Amino acid sequence: MTSLERQNGTAVQRRTAEHKPRRSWRTRLIGRPLETADSPHQTVGKLIGLAIFASDALSSTAYATQEMLLVLAAAGTMAFGTVFPLSIAIVILLAIVTLSYEQTIHAYPNGGGSYIVARDNLGDLPARTAGAALMTDYILTVAVSVSSGVAQVVSAIPSWFDYRVHLAVGMVLFVMIVNLRGVRESGKAFAIPTYFFVASMYATVVVGLVRYLNGSLGTVPNPPPLETLHELQALTPFLVLHAFSNGSAALTGVEAISNGITAFREPRSRNAGITLIWMSAILGTLFLGIGFLAGPIGAIPSEYETVISQLARTAFGGQGVLYLGTIAATTVILIMATNTSFAGFPRLTALMAEDGFLPRQFTYRGSRLVYSRGIFALAVIACLLIIAFGASVTGLIPLYAIGVYLSFTLSQAGMARRWWKIGRLQPGAEAKERGSTLRSQPGWKTKMMINGFGALCTAVVMVVFSVTKFMEGAWIVLVLIPLLVVMLRAISNHYRRLAQDLSLEDFREPPPVPRHRILLPISSVHQGTLAALRYAQMLSNDVTAVHVSTDPEEAERVRAQWEIWGKGVRLVILGSPYRLFLEPLLQYIDELASQRQPNETITIVVPQFVPRRWVHNLLHTQTAMMLRLVLLFKRGVIITDVPYQVE
Amino acid sequence: MTSLERQNGTAVQRRTAEHKPRRSWRTRLIGRPLETADSPHQTVGKLIGLAIFASDALSSTAYATQEMLLVLAAAGTMAFGTVFPLSIAIVILLAIVTLSYEQTIHAYPNGGGSYIVARDNLGDLPARTAGAALMTDYILTVAVSVSSGVAQVVSAIPSWFDYRVHLAVGMVLFVMIVNLRGVRESGKAFAIPTYFFVASMYATVVVGLVRYLNGSLGTVPNPPPLETLHELQALTPFLVLHAFSNGSAALTGVEAISNGITAFREPRSRNAGITLIWMSAILGTLFLGIGFLAGPIGAIPSEYETVISQLARTAFGGQGVLYLGTIAATTVILIMATNTSFAGFPRLTALMAEDGFLPRQFTYRGSRLVYSRGIFALAVIACLLIIAFGASVTGLIPLYAIGVYLSFTLSQAGMARRWWKIGRLQPGAEAKERGSTLRSQPGWKTKMMINGFGALCTAVVMVVFSVTKFMEGAWIVLVLIPLLVVMLRAISNHYRRLAQDLSLEDFREPPPVPRHRILLPISSVHQGTLAALRYAQMLSNDVTAVHVSTDPEEAERVRAQWEIWGKGVRLVILGSPYRLFLEPLLQYIDELASQRQPNETITIVVPQFVPRRWVHNLLHTQTAMMLRLVLLFKRGVIITDVPYQVE
Repeated sequence: MTSLERQNGTAVQRRTAEHKPRRSWRTRLIGRPLETADSPHQTVGKLIGLAIFASDALSSTAYATQEMLLVLAAAGTMAFGTVFPLSIAIVILLAIVTLSYEQTIHAYPNGGGSYIVARDNLGDLPARTAGAALMTDYILTVAVSVSSGVAQVVSAIPSWFDYRVHLAVGMVLFVMIVNLRGVRESGKAFAIPTYFFVASMYATVVVGLVRYLNGSLGTVPNPPPLETLHELQALTPFLVLHAFSNGSAALTGVEAISNGITAFREPRSRNAGITLIWMSAILGTLFLGIGFLAGPIGAIPSEYETVISQLARTAFGGQGVLYLGTIAATTVILIMATNTSFAGFPRLTALMAEDGFLPRQFTYRGSRLVYSRGIFALAVIACLLIIAFGASVTGLIPLYAIGVYLSFTLSQAGMARRWWKIGRLQPGAEAKERGSTLRSQPGWKTKMMINGFGALCTAVVMVVFSVTKFMEGAWIVLVLIPLLVVMLRAISNHYRRLAQDLSLEDFREPPPVPRHRILLPISSVHQGTLAALRYAQMLSNDVTAVHVSTDPEEAERVRAQWEIWGKGVRLVILGSPYRLFLEPLLQYIDELASQRQPNETITIVVPQFVPRRWVHNLLHTQTAMMLRLVLLFKRGVIITDVPYQVE
Repeated sequence: MTSLERQNGTAVQRRTAEHKPRRSWRTRLIGRPLETADSPHQTVGKLIGLAIFASDALSSTAYATQEMLLVLAAAGTMAFGTVFPLSIAIVILLAIVTLSYEQTIHAYPNGGGSYIVARDNLGDLPARTAGAALMTDYILTVAVSVSSGVAQVVSAIPSWFDYRVHLAVGMVLFVMIVNLRGVRESGKAFAIPTYFFVASMYATVVVGLVRYLNGSLGTVPNPPPLETLHELQALTPFLVLHAFSNGSAALTGVEAISNGITAFREPRSRNAGITLIWMSAILGTLFLGIGFLAGPIGAIPSEYETVISQLARTAFGGQGVLYLGTIAATTVILIMATNTSFAGFPRLTALMAEDGFLPRQFTYRGSRLVYSRGIFALAVIACLLIIAFGASVTGLIPLYAIGVYLSFTLSQAGMARRWWKIGRLQPGAEAKERGSTLRSQPGWKTKMMINGFGALCTAVVMVVFSVTKFMEGAWIVLVLIPLLVVMLRAISNHYRRLAQDLSLEDFREPPPVPRHRILLPISSVHQGTLAALRYAQMLSNDVTAVHVSTDPEEAERVRAQWEIWGKGVRLVILGSPYRLFLEPLLQYIDELASQRQPNETITIVVPQFVPRRWVHNLLHTQTAMMLRLVLLFKRGVIITDVPYQVE
């Protein structure tokens, strides 16, 4: 289609390309390209919404209890008794955070991730910090979830123990490809495994509780060996706090719904809020149930069998269909949790790239309408982490959750600040601030208290987390996040400076160019040289051919040939006593440049031979390429290759 | 200096660059650059000439006898008695080859290596074969000589046995750097070690013979262990021929003088010829002496101690100063033999590159006036060989000498053909053929017989060599040389076809260009875009700006800005539903190209952002680079980057 219009003297022609993308191995792998107009606009209800957004949060029940036990093991199996009280504390924390996020959802009906909330209410530095925290969090979610999923598989199939890293990397790449194809969050595909997981976990917990109450539960048959430490420690407050930190990883993923509010059917804030409360209720009850049952069955934290696996085979009395179903559901939900990151990370990086904090390339949507570069980056970094940590959940967990709690804190602090600003408005007044509109609202005080208290709680947990796990690996994240923040600022400064430098504000066109000089370097006179000469003469009538001479005989030959074919164009022969080619030419260009008038332009027209086959390049010097690399940084000097292809 | 002349209407300006090359790590390593005018023109006499050219030939005495013993060991120590008769046969062969080459030296006073002789007298295929044979030979000379040199060192210092490969690679790199600096074959530096080697070898042999005659010689004290085979073989003719083949490696290097005749003082052919005879006499007597003494002292071929080392400590009665001096001299002469290759290989490859058989880059002389690329290539390939064969002389020797004898054969066959042609001339007549002039000469029949017989002998040895050592590794060379020959032809064909395609013979200038169209792809309107627009308008008044649109809002913004800043230049907006950038643009260019008149030129002017720091490139898409890669193969489409540097 072509349409031509004329607006204020500028002819504008609009055309829509009709080219069909070619089929290739890429289309086979990720599917045919999609047009921009294909963007899906469907929304979901609460039931499907829960299925889509809950996998990350719910999946943490698969490892949080176990990671608490692991810390307490240092003080002997007697210490395992503190798991249930700690679980209650964590569920209280969950309730506070849920209440706080429920308010965020209503305040940001267009999606209120920590980055946006921090950016709109706290400023650039907190926004960058939230962004950095979220990025590390998304990456670690992938690494931890996949590693935990592999641990479930290995519990059921112990002979695969040695291939954990391979399995984990394979799973990440699988999820990456699925996401590059573009998950059109079609709901049902997500609903089945999520509800299957919820059902089988409830089944496990309920059967376990019933059998506990009627006394038929017993303990884990053939428990995995407890890796005992050389010496038992006392159950110090530090150890308890440490266990609490590990367990608090259960809250990761709670923020997912607040990022995806736009996916909900109207009234979307209300639907999203209710879904959040449902999700927290399920998460809380399951977590409490597992935490309670771990004690009576004598679950042992181990690399060889997960606590979930131990609980399921004790409750169901053996490794039957119900047991295998639970393990399968757990593995699948853990991989789906990964998927939450694959949805969130690319959106976050695209958002941050639009704000100039990350390379602009992250805003580019690939052939399947997804932010393919973000997806790719996430997969690569997560795989590197998995390889570095040998797919060990215990190794990765100290790095995890700091980012989550940091972003929790910033998000809730941002909300508190927002309520405070609303409180200062006149009743019925409105104020436009950054991305959002503030509207005066009654009850802002309570809301500010709730968000503020949430921020305080998560901040305390984050500090506890950082201190108790500092030596185990938390320091890595505590170093990494500030580095990331600095990097984000450097990138943003680069783009900002560039925009200023290129800005057309107060820009005055320079005077017209007085002279356009052409230099034509030639090594010998042949058809390619003459093609370049024809081109050069088309550009300007001020052409000079330049021959760098390392051999007087050769120079004489060139001169004689030029007399015949050079159309009277001036030839400069540059003697090169050191047999160098580029340097004498550059020196000559420098001399010309130093004499020239302001705004005079020098164009170097380089005849460039293009061989039929790539390998033939080895038989030719790449002078044009080297010239370009050297002259790229010179102002007012422009290089043109005139390719001559030989048929 | 600048001089301006006007010849037949073409202004020619001659300038000599006065730029001083910069000091850098390169100048530190290989010395300050030399001007072309610095080429040395000194010549040498017979004594110094012998020192320069004999190291390769003489050094073979260091391993030839040992490699014969090694083969004979298969038939038990009794078989060692055949070494001396075999040595006599090899010395006879040496005499024939020497006589034959003496004639070549007189026929080619400007240097008559096998490649030149074969090229001038036998044609292209034999020339390429000789070239390939010589190349493999030079490479193997480096690998074998250095490995043997390391074997000498290890004989004296057994604890270095495990570091043989490191030592060998280190030596090759050392010789490479010396040669990149440029050995100004200054004679004395070469004379001292060569004559020291000759003296100490004669001392060893003479002392050994005297003590043998007065009965005080005895056998090797603490000989190295003989690596016995599982089962003794019979002393078959095959085994004897195999031993003969190994020993015939002693002749390698005899051709060196014929390559370097120009280095001799006038009358240079005579001087070179006498030097050749001296050299062969020394080589022959030493080789015979060692072959004779190896028997009485009961020398054992071994990886742990060389036969030279065993002979020296037996003759001198212990590992005193004389022993150590002999070992040191042997090691030094072996490294100097390497140097012969480092002088010959780059000259050969430069010669072949000039004839179009190898990439032209080999003709380029580096900053120190040496063919640095040839030197570098030789060092790299030799190091790879040494690593592949673990610096084992025994492993490398089956590959060696085939190339030498092949080039011997071709050189002498070429000479025989030459005498035959001379015989067909009228007395007193002259004929110009290829590179050289044929002059009728009496006695051409005898000379033809000598060269012909020499060719026959070396051909027979080559066949014996190939057959007896085929399985041990000779097959590698027998596969490699034909492959090289094919490759040389492919390169030569490429250059020949190219020269034809570019030839100005029968070339008629195409009619003047009817139209020059400029396309200016823009992603947004800023100072860089406007700089490119100014440049584009300077080239032609037929300019079209093109915006590839993935986002209608962005396109509208560009259109509005273009109205203000676009100077009335037409703007085409290409819709890209699949969010691709290059493809719609390429399709548009294709459409234009299909409509254009013959010889019409399209120039794409691409504004290219040049960041201050290289790392900033990561923050920008490299559109200009990708466009160039794609359009390089399109006829009549030329790309110009207009760089905009930000200060």
